[in-house]
Amino acid sequence: MTREAWAEPIETLAPRLRSGKLTPTALTRACLERIERLDGTLNSFICLAPDALAQARTAEREIAAGKWRGPLHGVPIAIKDNTTTADMPTTAGSTAPGLSFPLRDAAATTRLRKAGAVLIGKTRTHEFAWGNVTPPVRNPWDTQRVPSGSSGGSGAAVAAGLCIAAMGSDTGGSIRMPASVCGTVGLKATFGRISRDGVVPHSWSLDHAGPLTRTVADAAHLLNVLAGYDPADPACQDQPVPDYTQALGKPIRGLRLGVCRNHFFERNHPDVEDAVERAIDDFASQGARVHEFEIPMLEYGLGAIFAIELASSTAYHDVSLRAGRTPHFQPDVRTLVEIGRFVTAADYLKAEQYRTVLMQAFRDVFAKVDVIVTPTMPIPAWKIGATTMDVGGREESVLAASWRFTYPFNLAGLPAISVPCGFTREHLPIGLQLAARPFDEMTLLRAAHAYERTHEWSERLPPL
Amino acid sequence: MTREAWAEPIETLAPRLRSGKLTPTALTRACLERIERLDGTLNSFICLAPDALAQARTAEREIAAGKWRGPLHGVPIAIKDNTTTADMPTTAGSTAPGLSFPLRDAAATTRLRKAGAVLIGKTRTHEFAWGNVTPPVRNPWDTQRVPSGSSGGSGAAVAAGLCIAAMGSDTGGSIRMPASVCGTVGLKATFGRISRDGVVPHSWSLDHAGPLTRTVADAAHLLNVLAGYDPADPACQDQPVPDYTQALGKPIRGLRLGVCRNHFFERNHPDVEDAVERAIDDFASQGARVHEFEIPMLEYGLGAIFAIELASSTAYHDVSLRAGRTPHFQPDVRTLVEIGRFVTAADYLKAEQYRTVLMQAFRDVFAKVDVIVTPTMPIPAWKIGATTMDVGGREESVLAASWRFTYPFNLAGLPAISVPCGFTREHLPIGLQLAARPFDEMTLLRAAHAYERTHEWSERLPPL
Repeated sequence: MTREAWAEPIETLAPRLRSGKLTPTALTRACLERIERLDGTLNSFICLAPDALAQARTAEREIAAGKWRGPLHGVPIAIKDNTTTADMPTTAGSTAPGLSFPLRDAAATTRLRKAGAVLIGKTRTHEFAWGNVTPPVRNPWDTQRVPSGSSGGSGAAVAAGLCIAAMGSDTGGSIRMPASVCGTVGLKATFGRISRDGVVPHSWSLDHAGPLTRTVADAAHLLNVLAGYDPADPACQDQPVPDYTQALGKPIRGLRLGVCRNHFFERNHPDVEDAVERAIDDFASQGARVHEFEIPMLEYGLGAIFAIELASSTAYHDVSLRAGRTPHFQPDVRTLVEIGRFVTAADYLKAEQYRTVLMQAFRDVFAKVDVIVTPTMPIPAWKIGATTMDVGGREESVLAASWRFTYPFNLAGLPAISVPCGFTREHLPIGLQLAARPFDEMTLLRAAHAYERTHEWSERLPPL
Repeated sequence: MTREAWAEPIETLAPRLRSGKLTPTALTRACLERIERLDGTLNSFICLAPDALAQARTAEREIAAGKWRGPLHGVPIAIKDNTTTADMPTTAGSTAPGLSFPLRDAAATTRLRKAGAVLIGKTRTHEFAWGNVTPPVRNPWDTQRVPSGSSGGSGAAVAAGLCIAAMGSDTGGSIRMPASVCGTVGLKATFGRISRDGVVPHSWSLDHAGPLTRTVADAAHLLNVLAGYDPADPACQDQPVPDYTQALGKPIRGLRLGVCRNHFFERNHPDVEDAVERAIDDFASQGARVHEFEIPMLEYGLGAIFAIELASSTAYHDVSLRAGRTPHFQPDVRTLVEIGRFVTAADYLKAEQYRTVLMQAFRDVFAKVDVIVTPTMPIPAWKIGATTMDVGGREESVLAASWRFTYPFNLAGLPAISVPCGFTREHLPIGLQLAARPFDEMTLLRAAHAYERTHEWSERLPPL
């Protein structure tokens, strides 16, 4: 099957762009046309770069002159609207008056520009990245459903072929959740692996920047560019950056695959549970050794991450609270920012202590396994406006259920990826989550790629 | 001048003990006699080890059999009463009903035992280490004055020759302050250098365990034993442990000595200021290059450390708050624990952010200097019961003034030592504080020893 350029991943686009068989201008134009045709419905972009085609032409000239910068050269990539750019405004999804974010390139923006990417536009975020819905963005698989969030614009745009990859940010699952329900790959690397310089803070100790891509190989290509030390982010770690594409196509025979049977397999949509069990079988059939375990304390995690997020967000928005600006926030975000004032420092410290103990529990597990596999979410995309959903036979708050499997890896700072894992009977995407040891993105990507290879990524195009 | 064994430092005792010229039993007996004679006034011990002489006899047999364990073998060392011991109760300085601390050896206790030390008794702490007075302990230089705190019992006991060294703990200055006003050496190593396992927590992110000793060489001997990784303390770092005695006796020509002219030199007792300026001249005369600088943000540090200490202490004492036990705390500590409930998580996070910025400021300074020198405290020992004191011509709260120069190095986690630096006109000890880069205790001890060598430590005996 011949595929339109906008539908391809970087891994197949890059050789064509390098050889001149495809030009950055043609590819960018294809994305822009696709945006024009579909984004009136999807609402995934908040603005486009006025110079997108000029960027593409520059890439085209450089490539033609033999100055190929690497696999991202000439590839249209979108930036989440909570990440600053010198050429486009940043709103962090807020229309509250008096806010202003600098017109300068964030660290990730700078790195993508240097790699030759065409930064095509800014994708919508849930206001201040403090939510999992991202209105008014619609899910390309069913436009009556949410793209989840907070990187919902990035998830919808990558899934719908409006751009080839996009940046997101992830505090409790905000990259992996939209990846899961939109049917893309979403990578949250180890805390400290990618600089958050220029990302509007939500919760300093939980925030991660990272990519949403069409394939695992594409995630490796983006990580190669994004990873590395940056003193401008105090949490960023000075650790060596390997070539992550070396993880691709490697066998996983003997890989120790951990399955945490409590928490992650207790209440799931039956189609999700079936798909993930099949994925575990698939790993086993490739020679992975499955090791089952439990981490009982996971059931207390929600209180911990909620205390930390509420407190951090309120600390960040203190200026807005004092200025009386929060009534101009969206009602859901206003509530969260205002109730965050009632989290005491003692509560916060207990949450941090929980986190320390959880990290130790994961360290103990990772003495016995190399990768942990879970569903990314217990549920597929829910209907716009719905606040509850049937989850494994019980009506549950989507707010509580949606991030249940992603936030433990924010608390622990571990690298985690969501990869497409088939569809529900309603043809809604399901996500498979893998997690690994700190700074072991190589093993994470190796496992994710081994799983992905056994499935046809072309199934992932939504019916638009 | 011939000196009694109890008045000597480990550096001169160790060869005598090893050779059998002095026995651990004789030395321990000398300390016990001294305790019996003086501690009715000083109150530095809360209890003695029932088996102190048995421990000494064991050491004596081992040494006689050629099984010398090292410089601490047979040396009477005291443990602060907030650090658990298997053979003596721990009270953390509290008489509140319903509290109980385990009868097991803390990490530091275990390490000292293995090194052959005679753990002679437990020294008094300010209740829960949450104060700077340590009643009813008296300062050996003037028994109408406080030994400061919270390791006031350790400071008084080492200064008065009731033991040869003692363990302390330091959250905002609790090792260095009693060292300063009692005329001993006090070492707070880098955060994470010495395990706090078994130390009753006060503020997890600020607490340090460490020794009070008679000389800098003795501090090096104790650090050799105490330093090292311990997974039981989540903050403990797995860093190599050098032989710290290699730092001793080394020249300091070319050492870059930093003097922070704001904060540390703005309001001091004139005798303190004179002594510290003479010390800086002394370093310069030994070939150190003096570099002056300012860190303007230091003036905001008190709010940050107070927020963190209040919050952490309240989180730790949550069980006591719920049990209605705090009315049984001492009034000063009760107030602190109860008001800690009103620190919000957002306040706490802002304090932590201040801390991050302060650490960066120190990193920038340590690109240009090797060691920072300051007074340990702006004031000498104050009268028991006094709440204010004239500090550089202004009547100031001793609570606010006393830890002004020590807490910045708790916030930043940097290694810092207090060494004796002469006396006021009233013959009260003055302390000189040195601080260095993270895990650079070698340079810290080298500088401290170079300064100490130019002065006669025998001046340090109080008039008892």
